[in-house]
Amino acid sequence: MPDFDWERPLQDLHELAELTGGPDGARRLAWSEDWRTAREWLLKKLEETDATVERDQAGNLWATIPGESERIVVVGSHIDAVPHGGWLDGCLGVCAALEVLRGHKGSKPAVTLKLVDWADEEGARFGRSLLGSSAAAGTLDPDEVRGLKDNQGIALPDALQENGIDLDTMGEAELPEIAAYLELHIEQGPRLEEAGKPAAAVIGCFGVERHAITFTGKASHAGSTPMDLRRDAFLAAGRFGLAARESAVERGGVATIGTVSAEPGIPTIINQRCEVTLDQRAFKPEQLRDMLADVKKAAAKIASEEGCDVEWKRIWRIDPIPFDEQLVELAAQAVAEVTGDEAPRLPSGALHDAAEVARRYPTVMVFSSSTDGVSHNPTEDTPESDLRIALQAYGRLYDLTAGMISEP
Amino acid sequence: MPDFDWERPLQDLHELAELTGGPDGARRLAWSEDWRTAREWLLKKLEETDATVERDQAGNLWATIPGESERIVVVGSHIDAVPHGGWLDGCLGVCAALEVLRGHKGSKPAVTLKLVDWADEEGARFGRSLLGSSAAAGTLDPDEVRGLKDNQGIALPDALQENGIDLDTMGEAELPEIAAYLELHIEQGPRLEEAGKPAAAVIGCFGVERHAITFTGKASHAGSTPMDLRRDAFLAAGRFGLAARESAVERGGVATIGTVSAEPGIPTIINQRCEVTLDQRAFKPEQLRDMLADVKKAAAKIASEEGCDVEWKRIWRIDPIPFDEQLVELAAQAVAEVTGDEAPRLPSGALHDAAEVARRYPTVMVFSSSTDGVSHNPTEDTPESDLRIALQAYGRLYDLTAGMISEP
Repeated sequence: MPDFDWERPLQDLHELAELTGGPDGARRLAWSEDWRTAREWLLKKLEETDATVERDQAGNLWATIPGESERIVVVGSHIDAVPHGGWLDGCLGVCAALEVLRGHKGSKPAVTLKLVDWADEEGARFGRSLLGSSAAAGTLDPDEVRGLKDNQGIALPDALQENGIDLDTMGEAELPEIAAYLELHIEQGPRLEEAGKPAAAVIGCFGVERHAITFTGKASHAGSTPMDLRRDAFLAAGRFGLAARESAVERGGVATIGTVSAEPGIPTIINQRCEVTLDQRAFKPEQLRDMLADVKKAAAKIASEEGCDVEWKRIWRIDPIPFDEQLVELAAQAVAEVTGDEAPRLPSGALHDAAEVARRYPTVMVFSSSTDGVSHNPTEDTPESDLRIALQAYGRLYDLTAGMISEP
Repeated sequence: MPDFDWERPLQDLHELAELTGGPDGARRLAWSEDWRTAREWLLKKLEETDATVERDQAGNLWATIPGESERIVVVGSHIDAVPHGGWLDGCLGVCAALEVLRGHKGSKPAVTLKLVDWADEEGARFGRSLLGSSAAAGTLDPDEVRGLKDNQGIALPDALQENGIDLDTMGEAELPEIAAYLELHIEQGPRLEEAGKPAAAVIGCFGVERHAITFTGKASHAGSTPMDLRRDAFLAAGRFGLAARESAVERGGVATIGTVSAEPGIPTIINQRCEVTLDQRAFKPEQLRDMLADVKKAAAKIASEEGCDVEWKRIWRIDPIPFDEQLVELAAQAVAEVTGDEAPRLPSGALHDAAEVARRYPTVMVFSSSTDGVSHNPTEDTPESDLRIALQAYGRLYDLTAGMISEP
């Protein structure tokens, strides 16, 4: 029987924060010196376990302990962080996974156990999230990312090469045949805190529709153009943002105007052009479809009423990714056992490496609460009492899953 | 009797456009080489008249023909232009004034006649409009503009010095005792064209309230923050823009959101901060007062509903400036005589040097129509048939005014 100590991951997290964090937040940008330092730290920790470590061609780190059964349970997350990031995003799941391996010191697991530390989940340096996990899952097209540069002008292929990775062979990294993939992460949103819940079973990841929408009206003088003869692109964009919100509320998804660029953008001229990005997310494909239809219709109506043209450009889309139903049940059971309370079940609004794995193998996640919903920020935090509960629930989920998987 | 030929100003305008314009628009930025070229051209034209030319300490050019009466009628406008400007803004009025002087060749006017070419009306290089006319009218505070720099980093005092002008003695330029100031200008708005009218009597200049308004909400994740827990600064600013429009429509003024800056301004984060500029204009002080009260109230309500803070910073304000009632009557009479139709009377939404003069002396303007309301742009235009009518009406206004002023 494994012998877990769920205080140890908390100590590990503080240790890692001391090594690669500070008052300005986490310094674990993927492919950087600091990230390699964090990985070295993880490798040292793994030396204390019975695992064999290897790195795949995409830079993902795998640590394996063969079990009684050859069926594989993978635990893990990512150790990389955004610049000025928090002390929990990613490494909470890595430290939890580390404890699962550590708990098997000297006792062969019932299932073959693998820890994974995905490379470059954040995409914070080159703009492409889930790089390592998508390469391993076979969904990365090297040509789509070859031209990406960081803000110093360094090209992605060169940064990879500095880490001994060849963009063109990254895709040769292959996922093992996974019976269950389990990931612990902070929520990065305010719902659990708002509901007074420390942890939850995650039912899947939101699908995303992301577009750039440009309204084009007419630049004219702020003083000499009467209100009824204006074609104001900013006001059109403002109305559009409100319509996108209304649709998201009605359909039960979320919608966000992120980038806003109004031109000419000077105090005495009516804006001729306003480009915004719209990010819509929802858990059910039909919600997402209806939300997109709503805003397309609203944009056309608003443009016509405001005397503007409107243009759409899709930036990105991904279907909703539901997690494995049986594993979601186990995750909810684990959370309920630890908290003595019914487990919340919620979709993740953010994407995770788990979404890449879930395309091919049974997957589930556990969330801890996030203080004030803040993430990607030095102030990111979770009460340690909630972290303890989430870690224990994750351990219990592993036990339940290993039990189920190892049954003949 | 003066002998006017209102075709000549049209020829002059084409000549000036050839000399200091081109496919990229007018090149007559104040204090520049091109501007000096335009002034040299004007000085050559003035040599053909009976006028004596001098430049005051603010750089304004004056050309005087003494008359039977010592009472002074001033005609003029500005020859400077914004970069990539049009062929009419400013120089239409200068060329019209030139023709008034030219028409008196060899015939002493009934009143003392002065042409003025104001220096730096546009403020396009340093951001301060009406520089020369405000210096002469005594409303320029040198310390308020001393620190202004152009986009090459050249300081205003240095650019002035290059033109033989000392910022600290600019204010010693003095307006003469003016009996009437008459200025012809293009409307720079669409109202006359919309109404099918070639020219109008201008009843004054709109007052302006210009503010920067900042909404501050909370940056949070576009995927993991539910709609009901958001504090979205961009949506607050969008609602505010719509409220400002509603108030302007209701009160009969105009309101414009010009500058828009949303931060962090990335697709996956809710905007924490959105700063906009609001420019409100109206002809009556009470309209402007009510419009400002409306939007202050709306901003507070919107901020509270959206969970945002709101901050106001006044950028600039100016009271409405009504023109002289008697001169407005003469201008309307002149336009009616030339068109055989009742003259439109409208306020100017844009500011003009006439506003500076009107603070102290009887003033009126005549507008020609503007094609499509476009100005400050190479495509700025007015049908020549409308220009002819406006020029003739301006000449008639001069006749009527000189007649009235010279009466004992």
